[in-house]
Amino acid sequence: MREKLIAMATAARQAARIVSAAGAVLKNNALQNMADGIEKNTAEILAANTQDLEAAKIAGVSSVLLDRLMLNEKRIHEMAQGLREIAELPDPVGEVEHETARPNGLRIGRMRVPIGVIGMVYEARPNVTADAAGLCLKAGNSVILRGGSEAVHSNRMIGKFVSQGLQAAGLPEAAVQVVETTDRQVVAELLTLDGYIDCVIPRGGKKFLNWVARTASVPVIRHGDGNCHVYLDSPVDLSMAEEIAFNAKVQRPGVCNAMETLLVHQETASKVLPELFSRLSEAGVELRGCERARKIHPAVKAATAADWETEYLDLILAVRVVEDLDSAIKHIADYGSGHSEAIVTADYLHAERFLREVDAASVLVNASTRFTDGAQFGLGAEIGISTQKLHARGPMGVRELTTQKFIVRGRGQIRT
Amino acid sequence: MREKLIAMATAARQAARIVSAAGAVLKNNALQNMADGIEKNTAEILAANTQDLEAAKIAGVSSVLLDRLMLNEKRIHEMAQGLREIAELPDPVGEVEHETARPNGLRIGRMRVPIGVIGMVYEARPNVTADAAGLCLKAGNSVILRGGSEAVHSNRMIGKFVSQGLQAAGLPEAAVQVVETTDRQVVAELLTLDGYIDCVIPRGGKKFLNWVARTASVPVIRHGDGNCHVYLDSPVDLSMAEEIAFNAKVQRPGVCNAMETLLVHQETASKVLPELFSRLSEAGVELRGCERARKIHPAVKAATAADWETEYLDLILAVRVVEDLDSAIKHIADYGSGHSEAIVTADYLHAERFLREVDAASVLVNASTRFTDGAQFGLGAEIGISTQKLHARGPMGVRELTTQKFIVRGRGQIRT
Repeated sequence: MREKLIAMATAARQAARIVSAAGAVLKNNALQNMADGIEKNTAEILAANTQDLEAAKIAGVSSVLLDRLMLNEKRIHEMAQGLREIAELPDPVGEVEHETARPNGLRIGRMRVPIGVIGMVYEARPNVTADAAGLCLKAGNSVILRGGSEAVHSNRMIGKFVSQGLQAAGLPEAAVQVVETTDRQVVAELLTLDGYIDCVIPRGGKKFLNWVARTASVPVIRHGDGNCHVYLDSPVDLSMAEEIAFNAKVQRPGVCNAMETLLVHQETASKVLPELFSRLSEAGVELRGCERARKIHPAVKAATAADWETEYLDLILAVRVVEDLDSAIKHIADYGSGHSEAIVTADYLHAERFLREVDAASVLVNASTRFTDGAQFGLGAEIGISTQKLHARGPMGVRELTTQKFIVRGRGQIRT
Repeated sequence: MREKLIAMATAARQAARIVSAAGAVLKNNALQNMADGIEKNTAEILAANTQDLEAAKIAGVSSVLLDRLMLNEKRIHEMAQGLREIAELPDPVGEVEHETARPNGLRIGRMRVPIGVIGMVYEARPNVTADAAGLCLKAGNSVILRGGSEAVHSNRMIGKFVSQGLQAAGLPEAAVQVVETTDRQVVAELLTLDGYIDCVIPRGGKKFLNWVARTASVPVIRHGDGNCHVYLDSPVDLSMAEEIAFNAKVQRPGVCNAMETLLVHQETASKVLPELFSRLSEAGVELRGCERARKIHPAVKAATAADWETEYLDLILAVRVVEDLDSAIKHIADYGSGHSEAIVTADYLHAERFLREVDAASVLVNASTRFTDGAQFGLGAEIGISTQKLHARGPMGVRELTTQKFIVRGRGQIRT
């Protein structure tokens, strides 16, 4: 197993030397080829996806997970369009920033360069295979993709057309490799390939990410793990509060920027919650609340301490009535995962304090947490949303998949 | 042990909330206080340093290490001046970059914020204690400092005046804490304080850094480990080649940006090496070379494979005569540690290829590797030189000790 991965990583390293120097035209050709190949072979990809879906149904996975796993013609078309959009993004490689002349005549700048070989570990959504392949290639990296076992047939088939696209553009196929085994030990091995892999990007739940942190010796950029809050302050526009809270929970509950816990100022609770709880219940949301929330609506079950820590990724919502802004900020500091945190408020100073004091990848005022997303932020496609503090935080696009090196131009300077 | 570290880290987290919001005036006052305290108490610090030096001599450490450990009035003055210079640097915290308006009216920017709680693990040079304390504080972080056991008395004494400086400025002393025990288990514990510490910055040799990578579950910014090369190309200005090679080895051999291996184009070897080898020998440098290098000068001993991998940090130099630019780039890719790599050349295309293709934190043309340094690069003081690819690469100053978060200002936007 380890030998096989080392062979893959060695091939990836050789390929990385080529794609890192390839220039935008070749890389964009490959991306267009991939998009065309995926679209032309929609039927074949759907057939592979059906195999995965049937196995998942037999295994009894939740409807939210089934939705993440499921492809259809529209989603496959979007996958191809995503690759075409990546082709149209500017190429950051080779760009030199902040070049300055020092008093001794040295010219010092920072050149943007690929990271090298990236390992990507993810679950469920097969479109990640195409997105990650496209983004890593555009940034001049090689990538080793290890999707979840539940999507193995879909990922293998997408990987096939990615390979063909690289080959047709004259780029090495080893620049994008899909690990086809479902053995979880593969992930552990990938995480310890120091010297072969420059970084691993894991996407998944909290437990999985904690295991990755303990296991990895290669650098990790932690993704996912979105225990997101919306705090309805006082004073507040009640209609705005209701709309944002409803949107953050219901518009797409299975994704990491959906709200998991609603915090409500005690003076706002009785004004906004009765109507909001009714709407949420009608939309199929299970409500779990503190004592004060339960008094407002009969549909609210009792929340336990575990609810404050849980990323449901489902139509379940925890609700807590809080004293004031400080209590809300403290709750978020205690339980938040550093993903997306929103306040709905009419108070200027409260908004500024929330923006400044809440420590998360994305802090929002009077907007739904659902906006934390590369495309919504204007960054183009994203490989995920980093919830760690180093290197990249929040939506990660092509630029965040590169690094910089200092370049120094002299004419014989020595240090005295 | 672990309980004590958790208590320190918890205090550091509380202090971080205060220093992160403290504003530049308070932080700069503390830095000035620290500088004054250190300078006024030079005698006390020298006495503590003498204790360390005497223990080190008994333990038989090398003269290079003794030099790193040694303080004198001049070095203590420089330490204080370093803190004053940090006070004069701009404060990056709170700065908002790239704020743009999206089509839906959301305003999205990136706010620069402190990382939080930093663990710093280092050896020998006691001035790192003051530098790291000053840089982390300026960036709004708390820091837990764990210096080498050989400098324990010096570090404790410097830490005392750092604490007094914080206190006199009205900032929490827990923002800078010196771990006083010499037990190495402390480092292992520090590296696994997930949730308490946001990142650890280790400085040290390759073996130590590899151990850190395997042990850590908190994010790590790897520092040090400078197996640096100078490549003398053909065509080349012979005098420039000789001066840069001599400077890179001899000017300060005990530091990470000193040259460890010299690579020489086969056509340049006979023109530059006889004179260079004589000068290096006279300067006390032990030469270890390949067969072709040995034919040039009787002082050159036979190099073994291990020499290409070794960071001597001493007056020892490995020398290899290579076929051409490609062989030099390959040698660096095979053995370099990604720190500083220099070419001396008169050929424009060779220079551009070297700049583009060599993968290191700092790539230099016609300049000594000794320039890779925060002050020399115009970044101000540095906490070290990152040799990893993520977050920060090369000299790390105040700005590199911060991170960013997205801030989003809306007026009720929801996602459709």
